[in-house]
Parts: sequence; C-alpha cells; structure tokens
Amino acid sequence: MTKDEFYMDLALNNARAMKGQTEPNPLVGSVIVNDNRIVGVGTHLKAGEPHAEIHALRMAEDKAKGGTIYVTLEPCSHHGRTGPCAEAIVKAGIKKVVIATLDPNPMVAGNGVKILQKAGIEVVTGVLEQQSIDMNEVFNKYIIEKKPFVTLKAGITLDGKVATHTLSSKWITSEEARYDVHKLRSENMAILAGINTVMKDDPALTSRIQDGRNPIRVIMDSQLRIPLDYQVITDNLAETWIFTTKNADPIKLNTLKEMGITIFVTNSEQRVDPEEVIEKLGELGISSLFIEGGGNINASFLEKKLIDKVILYIAPKLVGGKEAPTFLEGAGISEMADAVELINTSMEPIGKDFKFTGYVKKSDIGELK
Amino acid sequence: MTKDEFYMDLALNNARAMKGQTEPNPLVGSVIVNDNRIVGVGTHLKAGEPHAEIHALRMAEDKAKGGTIYVTLEPCSHHGRTGPCAEAIVKAGIKKVVIATLDPNPMVAGNGVKILQKAGIEVVTGVLEQQSIDMNEVFNKYIIEKKPFVTLKAGITLDGKVATHTLSSKWITSEEARYDVHKLRSENMAILAGINTVMKDDPALTSRIQDGRNPIRVIMDSQLRIPLDYQVITDNLAETWIFTTKNADPIKLNTLKEMGITIFVTNSEQRVDPEEVIEKLGELGISSLFIEGGGNINASFLEKKLIDKVILYIAPKLVGGKEAPTFLEGAGISEMADAVELINTSMEPIGKDFKFTGYVKKSDIGELK
Repeated sequence: MTKDEFYMDLALNNARAMKGQTEPNPLVGSVIVNDNRIVGVGTHLKAGEPHAEIHALRMAEDKAKGGTIYVTLEPCSHHGRTGPCAEAIVKAGIKKVVIATLDPNPMVAGNGVKILQKAGIEVVTGVLEQQSIDMNEVFNKYIIEKKPFVTLKAGITLDGKVATHTLSSKWITSEEARYDVHKLRSENMAILAGINTVMKDDPALTSRIQDGRNPIRVIMDSQLRIPLDYQVITDNLAETWIFTTKNADPIKLNTLKEMGITIFVTNSEQRVDPEEVIEKLGELGISSLFIEGGGNINASFLEKKLIDKVILYIAPKLVGGKEAPTFLEGAGISEMADAVELINTSMEPIGKDFKFTGYVKKSDIGELK
Repeated sequence: MTKDEFYMDLALNNARAMKGQTEPNPLVGSVIVNDNRIVGVGTHLKAGEPHAEIHALRMAEDKAKGGTIYVTLEPCSHHGRTGPCAEAIVKAGIKKVVIATLDPNPMVAGNGVKILQKAGIEVVTGVLEQQSIDMNEVFNKYIIEKKPFVTLKAGITLDGKVATHTLSSKWITSEEARYDVHKLRSENMAILAGINTVMKDDPALTSRIQDGRNPIRVIMDSQLRIPLDYQVITDNLAETWIFTTKNADPIKLNTLKEMGITIFVTNSEQRVDPEEVIEKLGELGISSLFIEGGGNINASFLEKKLIDKVILYIAPKLVGGKEAPTFLEGAGISEMADAVELINTSMEPIGKDFKFTGYVKKSDIGELK
C-alpha cells in the first residue's frame, strides 16, 4: 500500500461508515495531509450538511495551506449549500489533490478537476478508484437513471429451496445471516415484498439491529388483500407504501389511507407492473431498494431486467422436494446458454452459512428470454 | 509447523498422490529421519504391493537404525504379503515411531503400537491426525461397514436448478469445474447414474483427464430401457454394471450380457432399491461411489440415508422457472427444522464457479422424514 493509498483508504473507511445516512447524496470521505502528518479528516454525514472536504478543511484550519487533500469523489463544482468544494480547496491554499474517482454524472464529471488545475493545483485521479465506485454503487446508478439500485436477497438451502414442500421455512439460515439481513435493511431506503410473502408471515420488515434505520416498506398488493391488523399497517415503525391496481376495492383503499398508509394506484388492472413500481420509487427519491420477495416477485423483477445485485445466504442444508419452492420461479429462461450471468461475485462464510454477492451482467440484461 | 508436523506433512502428501490406485487399501505415507536428515520415503502404491513403511525402510537401508519413522497410519500387526510392518520396524532398529492416526478398524486398532512399545520403541500418535482421517474417508468407512463411501455430485445454478424448464442444461458450470468432476470420477471406484440421466445425454461416464482411471459405470435401470447403441454399452472404456428388477425383459437382459454388460437382477419388481445397490456394491469390493444422478435418484439415496459427502459446483447464473428441475427432488423433507445438515463444509472458487463440499451430519441420518 502506497502512502497515497493509505490516506485514501482512511478516507474510504470514514465514508463507508455513513452508509445509509447520506441519501440522496453519495458517501464521500476526505483526509488532508501536510508535512507527512494528517491535519484534517472529513466525511459527508447527511444531505444538507457540509461535504467531506469542507469538514476536513475546517478541521485543518490554516494547516491546510500547502497540504495535500485526499477525496474519494471529485470535489464538486456546483453552488450547493456549502459552495463548490473545488473553490474552497483553492481558497485554502491546498497544493495537491488526490481523487479516487471522478463524478459519476457525465454532465459534470471533470468540472471540479478543471477548477483545481486552473488554479495551478496538482491533481491525481484514480487512487483506489474501484473501491470508491463500489462504495457508491447506489448513488452512481441513481444519479444517472433516477431509478433505485435494486438488491435481490434470499435465504436458501443448498438445493435452492426457500421452504419445504409444506412451506415450512423457519429457519433456513443462521442467526449471523439473519443479523446481516437486518443490517442490509438498514442500509436501504426501501424494502419490497409481495402480498403473498406478507400474508404468509405477517412480517414487520423492519431493521431489528440496534439503532437500525427502518426502510420504507413497499408492498405489491394488486387486490389490496392485506389484513388491516398486520404489522406493516399498524406498528408505525416505518412508512408503508402499497402499490395496487385500478381493481382495488375503493372502500379498503380509503380505510388504509385513513390508517396512514400511502397507496399508489398503478395503471394496471390485474397485476402491479414491477417496472411502474421502480419508476415511481425513483421519482419519489428512493435510490436503493431491497427486495425480499417470494419466487414469483423475484422472477418478475428479474424478467423485467430490474435487478442490479443479488445477495444469497446459502445454508448447508438439504430439504429436497419437487414441489418445494425455490427463490426464483416464474416461467424461467428456456436455454441454459441464456442464463443471467452474475459477475464480480464473492462467497463469504457467515455463521454456518455462506453469503453470495454478485452483480447482474449488464450485457445480459438485454438478452433475457 | 513443528519438525514432526513437517515430516508427517510430507508423508501425507506422498500418500495423497496415490488417491484412486490403492483400493481396497488405504492411502499411507511414511518418512524416515535419522540425524536430522531424511533417509527414507515410502508410500503405499497398490494393493498387493509393500506397505509404505516397507518402502521407506528399504530406501533407508542401514540408515534406518536409530532413526525415527513417520507413518500416516498405525503400522499393521497382521501377517500380510509383506509381513507385519510393526515387526519390520522393530527389526530395522528404529528408535521412535510417530503416527498420525490409529487403525480405523476397532478390531485391530492399537495392536501395532503394542508391538512397537513392547520392543522398547517410543511411540507418538495424533500428529496431523485429522488430515490422515480425512485423506482416508473412503477406507475408514469401508473397512468397518463394507459399504462404499458415497459422494453425491451436482452442477447447479445459483437458484439450485440443474436445467431450465425446457431441460436445457449445457453448460451450467465452467470448464474448470467440469475438469474437476473428471478428476473425481478418476478417484472413485464406481460412478452411478439413473436411466433417465443416461437416456437424456448418452453420457460416457468416463474420466476424460489425461491418464484418468475410468470408474465402473453403475446404471440403475429398472425396466432395462437402455438403448443397445449407447456409449456405456458399446465403448468398452470401462465395465458397465446395470441394476434392474425382476420385471426386466429376459431377452434384452441376455443380449446385454452377451455384449459384455454385467446385469444384477435385484429383489424388487418395480424400482431398483438404492439400499440393495449399495449393499451389493460393498460386497463386490466397491469402496467409493460417485453419484451423478438426476434429482430423483439423488433424492432416493438421500432419503435412504446413503449419502456421505456432497459436492456441488455452483455457477453464478440464474435461470428461474417453477418447473425447472433442481438437483434434489422427490417428495422432500416436510419441516425445515428436519433438513439434512451438512458439516465440515467448505466453499472454494473454481473457474467462475464455486465448489461446495460438505458431509452429511451422522446424527441427521437417522432423522430423515
């Protein structure tokens, strides 16, 4: 690890620690070094509050002068609440700027660097670039597409089942894996489930870790079948948004509204279209969506090419059963050669289980049959 | 790593290299050290040939005198083709014997050690014991139960499927994973498939690695449906044994026999009973069986508690489909709490895929419902 990587790594770590609290802004960290010692550390904490560079400059005070600033994301060039960071860096007398990655928005990428270079500051880019890109996978998609970054999650047996043929499913995965799920819920702005999953277990869909942030609960319920005494309706632990169809019972719809539930009547008459849900969530500022659906909901999102990332908790267990449901049902793909490929995969032990992470290969997205 | 572990590790490595060529004998390696240098190395090569210790003693000649011998398995006390190794060690003037594991056969375990100790030789046991036990998992079962050690293998997608809903299955896993399968075939005495799998692909079921040893091909074919021009019948690359029922057509049975195929008519009238197959294979000296069945064959062996080890090649692909077959079908287990648990698990990357290895928890074997 070079000195540059060491400081950038520190900036990345500080940035990552804010996961789940900066939306719709990206995670950004910054470190200022002068005369071989760290004189300032900053990280973006919350939308509306100062950017990482500003915090670091404030901490460094006059020791910023002649120093080097490390930033995980290109300093902004626009006049936001705290002014353009690039200008603040120039003003502080910084001599050199080391950047992990340029702004993901092609409309503004490079603008910050230009301001710095015009002022005679040395600029280095690309230090630990991939780490910074990975860290902001949600922001990087949302800023361009205005659609949430969608993570599909399931807990499965080694033979791919999410329940036995009698639909017994408690518990497939270990406590450690279930804790990890609650952490992921906390890191996502919204969680989505289908009405069948909700009917089965009456889940709270909250993040039950200490100080966990509860995501907005999004339920796809084409006929408004949800019972009025269910947790997502009554517990007030997080907002609940229900997507339904024009066929929904207007009386139940009103009752739910009076109980504080947000209802979206979509353009469909039969089944809520996953694409419409994603569009709407994007419009409403939801940048990250965590899907804990059943096999049919999962398949409908995959078939519409709406999944970005797949996380599976694989328990070393076998249940068998031709009728036992798997986490991905629907009609399915016809030819093995057309299977959806996942890339940048990893497999980590977690408790007794294994946690798989992978990303849907973008070129595959257009080829789904 | 201590000096003892270093020498034992060398002995283990030499032993492991003979995997697949010592049946029905175990893998055993030996190293003789005198005056801080290795003076002899031995490994058991083939049943009927000298044991590892004898090879090492022969290599050491008179330099064995006063030395220490490392053996991965307790030296034998019985009069086999090369006499009891324990006595040969005494005769050679060895001063100290370091053993990884005692004989797995409780009838003779400790007898070799007794001979050595009676002769005043210092004996140390348990050095890298687990490695030696793992290396001989096949032998350790067979010597006691006279039944083959059964490994179930499947190549699956991340959603647990072995084919799409149209039964397209080429290729699920990467070339690296498929090469590994051919290696495993070579290490097993027999390979088993159901007639449905054979009918689907006309597979050769041979080990297509360089100098690979072909396992005996065992086909479960209750009605003798196998076409006479299929590879396993005509290619003469390995023996083919077919297990059928009393209902099998006697004319086809005779034709197959005349073509050099071994036919076992089991006690069943409808479906060949996996338990009878395993018993018979054990009687015939088959100590290791590799199952590459379809979902139903796999389930029938699991339900009868006949699986020892599970190896899965998991491709990072999704195909979905409620009707797409998984590697474990049948009726399946009813309660998730009764799922068959796999222990001593590992998950290794292989090509683009992941290779899972696990052992059926013995206490689970009695609880299958």
